[in-house]
Amino acid sequence: MPVLVVGSVAFDSLKTPFGEVKEIIGGAATYFAVTASYFAPVNVVAVVGDDFGPEQLKVFEGRNIDTTGIERAPGRTFRWSGEYTGDMSEAKTLDTQLNVFESFQPKLPAPYLESDFVFLANIQPTLQLAVREQLPHARLVGLDTMNFWIHGTPDDLRRALGHVDVLIINDKEARVLAGVDNLRRAAAAIRRLGPRIVVVKRGEYGACLFQGDAIFFAPGYPLEEVHDPTGAGDTFAGGFMGYLASAGEVSDANLRRALVYGSVMASFSVEEFGLSRLLRLSRAEIEARFNEFKSMTHFEVC
Amino acid sequence: MPVLVVGSVAFDSLKTPFGEVKEIIGGAATYFAVTASYFAPVNVVAVVGDDFGPEQLKVFEGRNIDTTGIERAPGRTFRWSGEYTGDMSEAKTLDTQLNVFESFQPKLPAPYLESDFVFLANIQPTLQLAVREQLPHARLVGLDTMNFWIHGTPDDLRRALGHVDVLIINDKEARVLAGVDNLRRAAAAIRRLGPRIVVVKRGEYGACLFQGDAIFFAPGYPLEEVHDPTGAGDTFAGGFMGYLASAGEVSDANLRRALVYGSVMASFSVEEFGLSRLLRLSRAEIEARFNEFKSMTHFEVC
Repeated sequence: MPVLVVGSVAFDSLKTPFGEVKEIIGGAATYFAVTASYFAPVNVVAVVGDDFGPEQLKVFEGRNIDTTGIERAPGRTFRWSGEYTGDMSEAKTLDTQLNVFESFQPKLPAPYLESDFVFLANIQPTLQLAVREQLPHARLVGLDTMNFWIHGTPDDLRRALGHVDVLIINDKEARVLAGVDNLRRAAAAIRRLGPRIVVVKRGEYGACLFQGDAIFFAPGYPLEEVHDPTGAGDTFAGGFMGYLASAGEVSDANLRRALVYGSVMASFSVEEFGLSRLLRLSRAEIEARFNEFKSMTHFEVC
Repeated sequence: MPVLVVGSVAFDSLKTPFGEVKEIIGGAATYFAVTASYFAPVNVVAVVGDDFGPEQLKVFEGRNIDTTGIERAPGRTFRWSGEYTGDMSEAKTLDTQLNVFESFQPKLPAPYLESDFVFLANIQPTLQLAVREQLPHARLVGLDTMNFWIHGTPDDLRRALGHVDVLIINDKEARVLAGVDNLRRAAAAIRRLGPRIVVVKRGEYGACLFQGDAIFFAPGYPLEEVHDPTGAGDTFAGGFMGYLASAGEVSDANLRRALVYGSVMASFSVEEFGLSRLLRLSRAEIEARFNEFKSMTHFEVC
């Protein structure tokens, strides 16, 4: 089953302790789409500028990704520039140029309106809600957000949250959104805002999933080096939603596996700058790492 | 099979956001012994002062704990006073009075010399090594330490580490001891110092066990409130070593279960001040929480 993503396509300039790159292809929708395409067909809704031509679009080619929803607008593509230092748990934004993204009005090609699995990447909550409302048949809608919207447009965000099934959010943002420090209580507070499933990303400490009274934990993959954390969250979402779309059914067992596939994909993503590791993965590598997660967490009750 | 612990018995005065207590019974050996006694017989080697009489010794009574190794010395018992604020991840020590603990020379009753399972709680590394050398038959010796010894007596600590099987340490201390920030590399560096097994405690993020090329993760139990973190590390060690002593065999499967039992016991410990939750646990409660850990981490490979 295909998965629809609405979000940004961008040029990123990054500096980490391992190096520096200029204007490489990035953006939440890009990381999500490339990742999810290992599991299911992906439809992308985004906007790019004149400077994002056939050469750049190649990133989506040969990957079961439909790009008819990527609009070309006059002007320059969204640009972001950031730096990671220390434990690299947070980027310091050096520059943001919204460019064509500033007036982004997501337009869904007719076939996308029947989407079952949808991911609303981190954009203005009013746009997330506008997209959501065009997808009455969606069975699982995931949403990501950030502090900028939590603080800046809290009412809009709450309205959007009232209409989604899954919030995928990092731990600090979850605590801020809920106004509660304790993670379990924060997840419960967020579930009262709408999402029946809350997925909390905890960086090197992995991720956890809250649904009803149940909690499921996946550890972070113990990498010896993280070269570039950019896009790890969207990659995680791509693995999570992509796996669920491929499985078709949103069961407890599938949600658990989805959380692990999200962690698997994020762990690959950060091994190299930008999309490079994600672009040359094999399904065998993905399954091998999934099995490593199993062996790192499995124990028998006597 | 019994487990031997050598460490402190103390009076603690504590303040946390949930309250304040004065001169309650604490100490690493106490938390360890009470915890491990749910799994196996425990022999305690420690020193107390004149002020630790039959009334105080009741904490060990009726629990499969042998206290013939607790020496009574003239003077006052070790006292520690500390405060937890914010996320309570670290205690701020307000006062330490070593008292009789200052000249502690562990004396092992003859029957203890045949111990198979031993835990050297956080004391001077030269004393840890002196105890270790009296236990030639020990099959599994665990050791805890702290920044004070890592910085203060690094050579003594290295000598002690050369003669133990398991180091149980918190994540910050592991990084300092190894001189490496990355946890996987830190564990590998520590294993080169002697311990074939490294257990890293990560507070609310759980614990992990490194052995050979294998890593096993247990999450932290998602409590809604932590009332008092004092003794959580020693409680963890008590569950870990106590379970292994009860199982008898140090297999991979048992080590995994031991890490979970350590996490289970630590999660109970912090629910209330001091030893109070640990003193009134039932084996059924322990098993129920162990099973919760299973359900919080279990997933099937398709």
